[in-house]
Amino acid sequence: MINDEFENLINEIKKIKGLNKKTAERMLIDFIENKDKLNSFIFKLEEIQKTYGVCEICFYYTFNGQCFICSDPIRNQEIICVVATINDAINIENNKKYKGLYAILGGEINLVRSVSPDRLHINEIFKRLDNKPNTELILALNSTFEGEVTANYIGNIAKKQNIKVSRIAKGIPTGGMIDYMDESTLESAFNNRKKYGGKQ
Amino acid sequence: MINDEFENLINEIKKIKGLNKKTAERMLIDFIENKDKLNSFIFKLEEIQKTYGVCEICFYYTFNGQCFICSDPIRNQEIICVVATINDAINIENNKKYKGLYAILGGEINLVRSVSPDRLHINEIFKRLDNKPNTELILALNSTFEGEVTANYIGNIAKKQNIKVSRIAKGIPTGGMIDYMDESTLESAFNNRKKYGGKQ
Repeated sequence: MINDEFENLINEIKKIKGLNKKTAERMLIDFIENKDKLNSFIFKLEEIQKTYGVCEICFYYTFNGQCFICSDPIRNQEIICVVATINDAINIENNKKYKGLYAILGGEINLVRSVSPDRLHINEIFKRLDNKPNTELILALNSTFEGEVTANYIGNIAKKQNIKVSRIAKGIPTGGMIDYMDESTLESAFNNRKKYGGKQ
Repeated sequence: MINDEFENLINEIKKIKGLNKKTAERMLIDFIENKDKLNSFIFKLEEIQKTYGVCEICFYYTFNGQCFICSDPIRNQEIICVVATINDAINIENNKKYKGLYAILGGEINLVRSVSPDRLHINEIFKRLDNKPNTELILALNSTFEGEVTANYIGNIAKKQNIKVSRIAKGIPTGGMIDYMDESTLESAFNNRKKYGGKQ
């Protein structure tokens, strides 16, 4: 029988995003067995606590006030990529192709889990667009039910306010095999087909 | 492009057992976005740092000196289950069937990674057996190359010192399908077969 206090600790640790019970358990044991590792980890966390925060404009991570993306004058100020989480923005940044700005929602609309639109940074996006009629919103939201709901919600407001809005294409992922694709992916892939040499 | 300092932080975090780069990244973002969560996590870690340690007899986790297994007089003192990690012992404890003691090695012999036998708690096991001729060692080690090497090493010492030693059975895991089993698992399963009703 595992100790109750120990079980509680694991449950506390697994509240952190990305951790499941097994990971939390391994982490905790590693800390107990290696006090030096635990000490330097606490030190690192205290550093994060003091120096990191979220950008006041786009809600990306930052060291001070504005993030390095919002404060970069070379980036295209007329495109704002709307993503659900900072992790999504990091993923797009790692790709090194996109050169516009971001707007991080801080989640997706999920009424089952009581995430209503007002709990996300949606109002802030439209405030940023005041007096900037040429700005385009690119919705880079997940192709899940929650992603669709969120995209529709933002898309509708944009339409009413006459704001340019687009959504990243859905289709077969790179390396994906037709044989394994679901119906809906295949349908999107056909609908989003592009010209490809030969006679059109 | 992701920030260098941020990348370094992720690399620091993923040194903790059980975390990969993606998990470390998610964890870090969660901490940056939710400072309250980070604060209470640091508090929890400081508590672990102060109150937890490893048992001086078996190297299981403990709050003070001896663990609750070693200090339980009801448990069978003449069986010692030898496992590689605290997590393995927790797994066996969760099963609630085993009622003996443990000896946690703190890893497996792995010469490629410079884990030689003297870096594991092997000597301590045999010291515990001094003047206890009836004690049996049960080797509950992984069925991997490193697990085999470690089991052989301990088994050989036990044989020389005339100590009772056994190893948990290898065979098909519960729910396992014959069709998917590798050759070596199948061979072990046949070799470890047991009587099962009918004419023997």
